[in-house]
Amino acid sequence: MRIGILGGGQLGRMLALAGYPLGLHFRGLDPAPEAPLGHVAELLVASYDDRLALEQFATGLDYVTYEFENVPGTTAEFLATRLPVLPPPVALFRAQDRLEEKQLFESCGIPVPRYAPISSPEDFGPAIETVPFPAVLKTRRFGYDGHGQKRVRQPAELPRAWEELGRVSCLLEEFVPFDYEVSLLGARSRTGEIAFYPLVENRHTEGILALSRAPAPRANRTLQEQAERSVAALLEELSYVGILAVEFFVVGETLLANEMAPRVHNSGHWTIEGAETSQFEQHLRAILGWPLGSTAMRGYAAMINLLGSLPPIESLLAIPNVHVHLYGKTPRPRRKLGHVTIRAESPEERDELVRLVLSIVEFPQPVTI
Amino acid sequence: MRIGILGGGQLGRMLALAGYPLGLHFRGLDPAPEAPLGHVAELLVASYDDRLALEQFATGLDYVTYEFENVPGTTAEFLATRLPVLPPPVALFRAQDRLEEKQLFESCGIPVPRYAPISSPEDFGPAIETVPFPAVLKTRRFGYDGHGQKRVRQPAELPRAWEELGRVSCLLEEFVPFDYEVSLLGARSRTGEIAFYPLVENRHTEGILALSRAPAPRANRTLQEQAERSVAALLEELSYVGILAVEFFVVGETLLANEMAPRVHNSGHWTIEGAETSQFEQHLRAILGWPLGSTAMRGYAAMINLLGSLPPIESLLAIPNVHVHLYGKTPRPRRKLGHVTIRAESPEERDELVRLVLSIVEFPQPVTI
Repeated sequence: MRIGILGGGQLGRMLALAGYPLGLHFRGLDPAPEAPLGHVAELLVASYDDRLALEQFATGLDYVTYEFENVPGTTAEFLATRLPVLPPPVALFRAQDRLEEKQLFESCGIPVPRYAPISSPEDFGPAIETVPFPAVLKTRRFGYDGHGQKRVRQPAELPRAWEELGRVSCLLEEFVPFDYEVSLLGARSRTGEIAFYPLVENRHTEGILALSRAPAPRANRTLQEQAERSVAALLEELSYVGILAVEFFVVGETLLANEMAPRVHNSGHWTIEGAETSQFEQHLRAILGWPLGSTAMRGYAAMINLLGSLPPIESLLAIPNVHVHLYGKTPRPRRKLGHVTIRAESPEERDELVRLVLSIVEFPQPVTI
Repeated sequence: MRIGILGGGQLGRMLALAGYPLGLHFRGLDPAPEAPLGHVAELLVASYDDRLALEQFATGLDYVTYEFENVPGTTAEFLATRLPVLPPPVALFRAQDRLEEKQLFESCGIPVPRYAPISSPEDFGPAIETVPFPAVLKTRRFGYDGHGQKRVRQPAELPRAWEELGRVSCLLEEFVPFDYEVSLLGARSRTGEIAFYPLVENRHTEGILALSRAPAPRANRTLQEQAERSVAALLEELSYVGILAVEFFVVGETLLANEMAPRVHNSGHWTIEGAETSQFEQHLRAILGWPLGSTAMRGYAAMINLLGSLPPIESLLAIPNVHVHLYGKTPRPRRKLGHVTIRAESPEERDELVRLVLSIVEFPQPVTI
């Protein structure tokens, strides 16, 4: 069985590494010749809208998936006329536009922060009436890792923020004074089988994920069930196949959906060692219609991203129960170069190891627990 | 860092899959173009004694290791003049000759079954005086998976057995009425650091490993310590670097060394999911002089080989906590095509899952627990 991956980043690389033991073969497509997947699998270097290259890419593949949510939806649709593209391209379209994403959440009965679309100065007035301040202005498309966002403390700042984001279609969102942020990863198989991982608590540094702890230390059964209901509704609504990640703000006992990613997700990297089945294997099982694997945890886990530069590998490997994952990327400020997983027998032991790793790893803004 | 692997079988493939997350690159050498490593890494197809190919293989590598103990020792020695070959070639030489292996064990104070060398009919008489019957006649070289062995129930059968093995240099060994067989995997780093995994109990089918359970259900602390002392002595004696596997017969409270393998070992495959650090990652850490990883178990584990033909993958994946590892090899009777790992929270749960998998998997001779 040969699987094509749109995008050749670390997510694609880890999909391939999870799939080889299952007897699968992989081919990636990425415009960058140095894409991390290329070190461990066949990589076709081409633009996502090069139709000739897409034909070549599709030849001999059984399935196509994607690891990068800014793959043009039209690329996924074009390939879907030739072979199964999973998750379904509709999920890609919804996730690529913050307005459509919000509307999808609402149609599934999932609470979201108050918001209003802004595509011209005429929208300022109605938006100011709908959305309380402070607020955040976000571009509707191509936002990631804190890019395409501006804080707007009061209505008067709105025109300037919109200018700075390039006068593109945006969404004004209330700034939710959340207690903390969590994410839930759900999987739905082609057979309709569904499975969820435990809620994960995420910490960011300058908008980039820095730390995930699983299970989320402060989340209870009620939150887990609330999150599972929301993600289940999305999975069914989209006839989704694969891993779907949804980020939520926790406000008291309520979850507000922030955004979704129709792919394996950085906040699920801990599953490689920390869960009985990794998100990468689960994604492949789902696509192939194979039985989903157990999502039970192996003790307690955490994931810490290695951003911008790498500490000496020996300093990480010397810590027991720390597992190193490097992506083979050239260092560059803020870039995700790798991650470490921590696995422990208790939440206290995990958090102690987290503090130890945080003392070695450098972040744009320090992260503490 | 680029590591060369002599041999492109499943052991090499699993070494590469363990090494990619550590940022390593791999190149294999194997005479067979369809070698399993070739699906996941660069593979040079050439004979082990092709000096020109060896030069090409060595170019740009930082280290060479091997995954196949019948690689000619002279190949390892030739490469060792160019770059570090680890484990040291001396280990390969010792392991390739059952007589030298036995003498090494004895020089390290490790008990072995009684034995006598036989290289001509003149040796029959002295051997019969030294070795009690029933006995086993084994070729000194190129034995594996039960090949190159003949049972000799009484002295009169010895000449015929020797004929049948091709009149090559052999060892006559007493047949030890052992209670069961175990193996111990030890790792020694270039820095001298040593670590051991728990003893594993092994069951065979027609001389091929079928099942390993970890920790060995019937082994106690005394046996573990006895095995660790023996393997530590070998590691030091050989200035060994990497994973060394030693198989022992258990007779009451005594261990008799059967044989050693200077490489990662089939009876250690369970470590991928069942131990905090897999034998494959440990082997690489040792070679690179990196700190060794924790060898602590994650609960209880078992490994079952998939021999000759594969059951439908769905039937295995449907069992919770069963992990599938396929090697991408063409089915052939008795051939190792893959394995599954079982991970459980108790020995009872593990054994129940073992029985379930054994009911799905076919063996030349049935294996039961």
